[in-house]
Amino acid sequence: MAFTAPVSEQRFVLDTVVGIDELAATERFAAATPDVIDAVLEGAAQFAAGEWAPLNRVGDTVGARWTPDGVVMPDGYRAAYQAYVEGGWGTIGVSEEHGGQGLPFVVQAAVLETLGSANMGFALCPTLTVGAIEAIEHHGTPEQQALYLPKLATGEWTGTMNLTEPQAGSDVGALRATATPRGDGTFSIKGTKIYISFGDHDMADNIVHLVLARTPDAPVGTRGISLFLVPKVRADGSLNDVRVVSIEHKMGLHASPTCVLSFGDHDDCVGELIGPEFGGMRAMFTMMNNARLNVGLQGVQVAEAATQKAVDYARERVQGARAGAQSAIIEHPDVRRMLLRMKTQTMAARALVYYACGQVDRAGMGDAEAKDRLEITTPLAKAHATDLGNEIASIGVQVHGGMGFVEETGAAQFFRDARITPIYEGTNGIQAADLVGRKLSLSNGGAFASLITDMRAEAQHPQLTALVDACEAVGRRLQTADADDRQAASYPFLTMLSVATCGWLLERQARAQGADAVKQASVAFYLDQIVPEAMGLEAAANAPASQLYALTADAF
Amino acid sequence: MAFTAPVSEQRFVLDTVVGIDELAATERFAAATPDVIDAVLEGAAQFAAGEWAPLNRVGDTVGARWTPDGVVMPDGYRAAYQAYVEGGWGTIGVSEEHGGQGLPFVVQAAVLETLGSANMGFALCPTLTVGAIEAIEHHGTPEQQALYLPKLATGEWTGTMNLTEPQAGSDVGALRATATPRGDGTFSIKGTKIYISFGDHDMADNIVHLVLARTPDAPVGTRGISLFLVPKVRADGSLNDVRVVSIEHKMGLHASPTCVLSFGDHDDCVGELIGPEFGGMRAMFTMMNNARLNVGLQGVQVAEAATQKAVDYARERVQGARAGAQSAIIEHPDVRRMLLRMKTQTMAARALVYYACGQVDRAGMGDAEAKDRLEITTPLAKAHATDLGNEIASIGVQVHGGMGFVEETGAAQFFRDARITPIYEGTNGIQAADLVGRKLSLSNGGAFASLITDMRAEAQHPQLTALVDACEAVGRRLQTADADDRQAASYPFLTMLSVATCGWLLERQARAQGADAVKQASVAFYLDQIVPEAMGLEAAANAPASQLYALTADAF
Repeated sequence: MAFTAPVSEQRFVLDTVVGIDELAATERFAAATPDVIDAVLEGAAQFAAGEWAPLNRVGDTVGARWTPDGVVMPDGYRAAYQAYVEGGWGTIGVSEEHGGQGLPFVVQAAVLETLGSANMGFALCPTLTVGAIEAIEHHGTPEQQALYLPKLATGEWTGTMNLTEPQAGSDVGALRATATPRGDGTFSIKGTKIYISFGDHDMADNIVHLVLARTPDAPVGTRGISLFLVPKVRADGSLNDVRVVSIEHKMGLHASPTCVLSFGDHDDCVGELIGPEFGGMRAMFTMMNNARLNVGLQGVQVAEAATQKAVDYARERVQGARAGAQSAIIEHPDVRRMLLRMKTQTMAARALVYYACGQVDRAGMGDAEAKDRLEITTPLAKAHATDLGNEIASIGVQVHGGMGFVEETGAAQFFRDARITPIYEGTNGIQAADLVGRKLSLSNGGAFASLITDMRAEAQHPQLTALVDACEAVGRRLQTADADDRQAASYPFLTMLSVATCGWLLERQARAQGADAVKQASVAFYLDQIVPEAMGLEAAANAPASQLYALTADAF
Repeated sequence: MAFTAPVSEQRFVLDTVVGIDELAATERFAAATPDVIDAVLEGAAQFAAGEWAPLNRVGDTVGARWTPDGVVMPDGYRAAYQAYVEGGWGTIGVSEEHGGQGLPFVVQAAVLETLGSANMGFALCPTLTVGAIEAIEHHGTPEQQALYLPKLATGEWTGTMNLTEPQAGSDVGALRATATPRGDGTFSIKGTKIYISFGDHDMADNIVHLVLARTPDAPVGTRGISLFLVPKVRADGSLNDVRVVSIEHKMGLHASPTCVLSFGDHDDCVGELIGPEFGGMRAMFTMMNNARLNVGLQGVQVAEAATQKAVDYARERVQGARAGAQSAIIEHPDVRRMLLRMKTQTMAARALVYYACGQVDRAGMGDAEAKDRLEITTPLAKAHATDLGNEIASIGVQVHGGMGFVEETGAAQFFRDARITPIYEGTNGIQAADLVGRKLSLSNGGAFASLITDMRAEAQHPQLTALVDACEAVGRRLQTADADDRQAASYPFLTMLSVATCGWLLERQARAQGADAVKQASVAFYLDQIVPEAMGLEAAANAPASQLYALTADAF
């Protein structure tokens, strides 16, 4: 059975978790009427199922290929991307001023979810363009905005993010790419960047590379970094001096070319500064924070797709008997448990990511509380939703039995594709460090305290309230713990707080008008069975770093 | 850095968990002196590192290939297999009577662990031969034993297990392959079998297929199944009528050809009965129970290999700073947590599997209590150790960051290879069903009660004793629960009981003479941080099946 976007679930989450009606009541998002939202979700569902889902497998088996003339996408991708551009699917979340539809970020996220469930590797391309748009919208000059945003909005041009270098991964401050003034206001860019998703391809007329580099005499570390815009094709139509050195041979996500890009091999790579000199980290975070949410969204994408495939298989596969009668495996208790877990955890991931995305829209209108909430939920959404995407894809393989290990079935592709999501856009360990480092102390601890307060005000299930209490206690302790102890506890704490947040949002859904039997049963399962698992992490979240260092590095 | 077998850890586990000295004190295993064990472990370590590990990557990238003349292994495999045969590595656990060295099954397991850590796909071939040997040793006639066992012991011939058919996977009773008497005591075999690992290859002179089939007028279901031996090459040197139809295109384990075999296309496939007619299930369980332990062992194999690779990478990769100084990532608390988890969970998996393997040796000498213990720990060893193998391989990818998703690094291969282990030889769900079905009630519940009693007698850590108590309570409840409730709780219960068992065996190790700092630190981490996680499963293990059926199959 083909992929079907979960439109009514998406709509329900927008209503109950995001409060889309509140957003639509603002001047900025007046266009987001219920009819428009329905039309967008339905339209995206049809488009994704019809145009992108059928290309998912060839994206995996053939994949993007490097040639001396650049990266070539598999057959069908160019046309399907053109259909995306023509359908206006890229313009959803871009402001009307810059050629977009001016709908909320969270609605754009719902569309990206649908596209990515149909074809995750493909959907990474517009996901990156969204990041480039954000950076230029917030930090570009009016001229830069006028030149680049309309083309990026439609998707006629695509965007990339160029941060990583071989010696500078999680430690972005170690980067060495240089930007030398050319005397005309532009810069000459030189350096090598790795892991550049869609760093090259043949689907768009131009590619807008956003590149972190150092100007001459810049301070060391992150303070000396600036952001530059380097177009593949310059304004005069000439090719810029950017070369694809190679593409990676990856475990999954084969439709997405992961490039090594060399800038300025011939000292003729022209870039322009985006934002102020040394403002690179700030601009990068603009681009990256929302990109982190969109990677969390990839967790939702793969979770939904894997769940649908596993449910279909379990309904059709007859094996063994229950209560004396031959039955499809969906009738067997342990298979049922796996499927319900998949379905419920998918709901949890979606609730968490949509919730955070909704805060982008609120924060964008100056809501300071929403900005805090966005900051503290971003690492949860990125890390926990991608962890769930991986867990769910793995259960999907298991439900298929031997067929899950055979590539033709497709369950294996989800499992392989999903594995990058806890790694890129800041590893999940980096997210956990961000949570216990910057986010717990944000607004003097107010961002954390207000999340706890909101959860406590609504949470009713005894296991959930116990988890909220435990999160508060651990979080408060970590606020004053030393750096090592904080980080040692960071990952278990991140998972506890994520599950608490998901439980809170799911319980709210179950209480809402229109919650159907599927929702009720799924939420009950989550609260009764999954929330207690998170309590099992409390010991680790309270353990000191000294336990990790009882063993020397040499002794491992 | 190349793979190095953990010889001293293997030896320590044999001493403290298995009680190898007790086995060596028996007449049957008098050969298992400390010197011999050391020589075997050391020799296997050198052989595996020198001959098999270097072929791991080509096994993945080139893999076994199907040709019209049969399956061809990648370059180097034939010679490396020949070296295995000449080194006598297959003969370790086979009785001296049949050309073996007469060492304990658990010592053979240690050797297989080493071979499989070096090259898991390759090691599956001798693993299957072990299963064939067991079946023939227990159920074959003296003539069959004399004909087949010496060649299987050396590995000159290899063995396969042919159970699964397209409609008969977990439900083996649904199989349809037929065996018709030919009037001379032999049978004509006809049918198609799928997922036959090493069903064909070019490394040995003959392949001994053990095939489940039905004789004419056999009862339906499992009661009507008999086991047949079908050699690839018949005694007169002619080829038997067995054809490789295709091999699967799998996510991992590419060095292991997974064949579809067609028996009797030309009505000329000759097989001989092993054991009595209709004794197929019993013979299959002989072969399969130990095969289950050997699959659990694959969890240990991949865990050890993935851990070593991740530790090496984390020591070398410099990124970011700790306490103000640039450092290798192994110094960062969250990376440290991942590595310690990998190391500790590998120890846990090894303790569990070796312990169960030791019971094979004790049970084989008529120890009824050991037989019960073997029965109840087999599903734990198979399911939990393979779950751990997957978890650890996944953490290994994570430690590598972006490099983990790039195939050249090798971390991805472990992740892909490991994924089959929770599926084959009875899915882990089937193991859980076996635990709560057959095993909890074994010996009127005595097998379970005695395990709890033994754990309680030794366990000291408060979290561990709490977990043992919880396991006892859940297990007792499940003994009288109805089938659906039992199965609904089966998987969380299996994990709880497995963690309790691992904790018990690890705590024993930490107390033992010779326990070094690595062991102490690892065990402390396990007891303080991992055991409590298992307590988080108690709610799920006590939840009724009705929660899973609150949603109809259509509503998913």
